[in-house]
Amino acid sequence: MPLLSLLTDFGLSDPFVGEMKGIAKRVSPNLEVIDVTHGIARGDVREAAWVLAKAWRMFPEGTCHVAVVDPGVGTGRKALAASAAGHLFVAPDNGLLMPALESIPGDRELREVTLREIDHRRRGTTFDGRDLFAPIGARLASGLRLAELGPEVHDPVGMAPFRPVPADDAWDVEIVRVDRFGNLVTVVEEAFLREKFEEDWRAVSVRVGDRRISGVQSGYEDVGPGEPLLTVGGSGTLEVAVRGGSARELLGWEGSGVRLDAPSDPRNPR
Amino acid sequence: MPLLSLLTDFGLSDPFVGEMKGIAKRVSPNLEVIDVTHGIARGDVREAAWVLAKAWRMFPEGTCHVAVVDPGVGTGRKALAASAAGHLFVAPDNGLLMPALESIPGDRELREVTLREIDHRRRGTTFDGRDLFAPIGARLASGLRLAELGPEVHDPVGMAPFRPVPADDAWDVEIVRVDRFGNLVTVVEEAFLREKFEEDWRAVSVRVGDRRISGVQSGYEDVGPGEPLLTVGGSGTLEVAVRGGSARELLGWEGSGVRLDAPSDPRNPR
Amino acid sequence: MPLLSLLTDFGLSDPFVGEMKGIAKRVSPNLEVIDVTHGIARGDVREAAWVLAKAWRMFPEGTCHVAVVDPGVGTGRKALAASAAGHLFVAPDNGLLMPALESIPGDRELREVTLREIDHRRRGTTFDGRDLFAPIGARLASGLRLAELGPEVHDPVGMAPFRPVPADDAWDVEIVRVDRFGNLVTVVEEAFLREKFEEDWRAVSVRVGDRRISGVQSGYEDVGPGEPLLTVGGSGTLEVAVRGGSARELLGWEGSGVRLDAPSDPRNPR
Repeated sequence: MPLLSLLTDFGLSDPFVGEMKGIAKRVSPNLEVIDVTHGIARGDVREAAWVLAKAWRMFPEGTCHVAVVDPGVGTGRKALAASAAGHLFVAPDNGLLMPALESIPGDRELREVTLREIDHRRRGTTFDGRDLFAPIGARLASGLRLAELGPEVHDPVGMAPFRPVPADDAWDVEIVRVDRFGNLVTVVEEAFLREKFEEDWRAVSVRVGDRRISGVQSGYEDVGPGEPLLTVGGSGTLEVAVRGGSARELLGWEGSGVRLDAPSDPRNPR
Repeated sequence: MPLLSLLTDFGLSDPFVGEMKGIAKRVSPNLEVIDVTHGIARGDVREAAWVLAKAWRMFPEGTCHVAVVDPGVGTGRKALAASAAGHLFVAPDNGLLMPALESIPGDRELREVTLREIDHRRRGTTFDGRDLFAPIGARLASGLRLAELGPEVHDPVGMAPFRPVPADDAWDVEIVRVDRFGNLVTVVEEAFLREKFEEDWRAVSVRVGDRRISGVQSGYEDVGPGEPLLTVGGSGTLEVAVRGGSARELLGWEGSGVRLDAPSDPRNPR
Repeated sequence: MPLLSLLTDFGLSDPFVGEMKGIAKRVSPNLEVIDVTHGIARGDVREAAWVLAKAWRMFPEGTCHVAVVDPGVGTGRKALAASAAGHLFVAPDNGLLMPALESIPGDRELREVTLREIDHRRRGTTFDGRDLFAPIGARLASGLRLAELGPEVHDPVGMAPFRPVPADDAWDVEIVRVDRFGNLVTVVEEAFLREKFEEDWRAVSVRVGDRRISGVQSGYEDVGPGEPLLTVGGSGTLEVAVRGGSARELLGWEGSGVRLDAPSDPRNPR
C-alpha cells in the first residue's frame, strides 16, 4: 500500500491533521498515513528539517514524506517535491527539505509543484497543508510521476548545515532540539566523534554553561542516578542526558549552544 | 476498506481513544480509523459540532464519522446515527450532529441507536465512546444498515446556528474556536461576505475589543510582520490572524465575540 | 492484517513514535499500528502496567502489544516477549507486562529477547523502542514464533498487585491514575465490590481526604451538577468523579490514596 508520512507544526488539538488525512484518503483510498510528529515548535523550519533528515530513513522505500512547517504560507513561496534514494518528499520551499536531500548520496530530482489539479482554495490560502501538500503527496505516493508536478528547481532555498563550528580549542555546538525527557540533542554526529577523538570516548568533553561533562557513556548505568552524562542518542548524535532525570532542568539549559572541547592530543587537529 | 473518523474531547493522554480503536478493529478487522482531533475542549459540544460540520466533507464518501463529546454520558440521553450525502454519522443526541446534517442538502436518515449487540457495560455507563459509539460506527462503516440500529428520530436535540447576528450597523460575530496559531475563527462564511460586501474585500472591517482590522487579505504577505489581518481560513470562514504571530495574544482576546461592521453603502442592506 | 498496539511514555511532540512506526512498517509492510496512548507519565512503569492490563483485551486476538516505559534503557535489563490468550506482548523486563499476564488464565509463554537481527544501535543504546521493541513486535505480529526470540524466562521482574489493602475497618485504596476529566481511578474492581457489599451499592463509601462520598451510582444523573459521585468507570474499577466537573480539582486531590470503608454488616467480613 502507498505510504505517506506527515511532519508538521500543526499540533493535534485542531482538526488540521485530521483534515489532511481525510483529503489524502479521498485522493488515494488505499493510502496509509503515519505521523512522524506534529509537535515541531510553531514555525520552526530548522527543527523540522533536522527531524525529517533523521526520520525519513526509518521508513520503507517508496514512502512519500509530506513536511509542512510553513511560516510563508499565503505568500509567494514555492511548493517543492523531490525524489531521492527511492523516497519522495513534499514541502514548502523554505529549506525544510534540504538537509534530508543533502544527506542522500546519488541522484535526486527536485521540482516545483505548479500542478493545481486539486484546489480547495478560495479567497484565503492559509491551509496549504490540506489543500496542496497532502493531496500532492497522496498522488505521488500512489504513483504520479514527479515530472508531472512542475518544472525542475535548481536554486531551492537553503538551510544552514547542522555541524559543529570550530572555535578556539573547541567547537561551538548547536542544541537542535530538546526532547520530552529533557535530553539536549546536539548536531555532533557519532562519526565526527570517531574521527576527531579516534574512538577515545573518554576524551570527549562538553561544557554546558559552567558545567563540564566528560566521557561518552555506552549506557545510563555508567553514571549514578541523577548524574549528567553524554550519550549517542536516537538521532545518532551526541546528547547531554541525565540518568533518571532531565538535563534541561538539572543544567538549567536556556536555549544556547554548548562547547565541545577539542582533543588535547596534538595528533588530533581540528 | 471501511473508514471511520473519530472526533472527541478525550485527549490523547488516556487510553480512551486507543481502546475505542481496539474495539472497532475487533468488530471490523478491515476497518481503518483516522483521528479528526481529540482536542475539543472538555464537554464543548458546540466546538465539536463546528469542527465536524467542516471536517466531514474532507473525507471519502462512505466514511462513518464517530463524534463523542458527551457531557450527558451516564444519563438518559439518546445515541444517534445518521446518513446523508453518502456519509454516516454516530454521536450522542446533544446537538453535535445537527450543524453537519443541516449543511447537507437532500435526503437524510436519522435514527436512535437502540441496538445493544455489543455491550461491555456493567454497573457504570461512563465510557459509551468505547462501549457503544465505536462498535456501532465500525459496524455501520462495514455495511450494517442504519435501519437495523433503531427507530427513526424526528426531534433530535438542536444546536443554535453558526451565523452572524444582526446588531446596530453591524453583526455580532461568534469566535467559534481559536487554533494553535492563535487565529480567531469566526462563523462568518466567505459566501456571506461575498453577498453582503459584493466582493469588495477592502470594505470588510472587524472590531476586536477596541481595535479595528480592515480588509480581507488574500495572503499574509499583504501585511507587515506582526501585523493583524483578516483572512478566509481553512474552515472557509473569516479569521482574525497575525502575520508570524498570534491574534489571541496580540489582540488580548479573552473569549468574547467580535463585531463585523455593516457595509457603509446603503445599497447593501443587512 | 497483522496488528501492533503501542503504549509508551514518549509523548507525541518528539519523532519517537513516528520512527517506531516507520521501522515497524519497514519490517512488516502489511502491518497496522494503533496507539493505545503515549501519555503515560515519564518513567511510570506502574501506570503503564495498569493501562496495558486493562487495554489489551479491547484488541483483536493476534494483536502484538508493544509497551515501552523503560527507565532502565541503556542498562542491562532484559527485553521480554510473551504470548497469552492469543495475544502477543513485548516490553522491557521491569514489571510492565506482569499485571496483564497475571490477569490471563491458562498457559502463557514468556521469553527473553536475545535476537538482534535488526540492529540500528551504535555507541548509544537509548532508543530501544525503535531499535529493538518495535521491530521485534512487528515480526511477532507477522508470524515469527516466540521461541525464535530467545530463552524462556521464569523469574521476570514483578509488579506489586493492584488491589485494596486491608486496614482498620477499611481498605487503603490506590489511585492508579487520574484521567483528563479529573476522575480518580481506583484499583477496586467491580467484582470486589459485588462480593464484599453483596451488590448493595448504596453501602459503598469512600473517604477522599476529609470528604466522604457514598453510594455507587449507575450514572451521572443520579447526582446534581457539580456533585461528587462514585461510579464504575471504563476500566471496570471504582472511580471518584464529579458530574460535569473534575474530582481532582473539587476534592483537592494531591496524589495520595483513598479509604474504602468496610461494610458495617458483620456478615461481610473483610
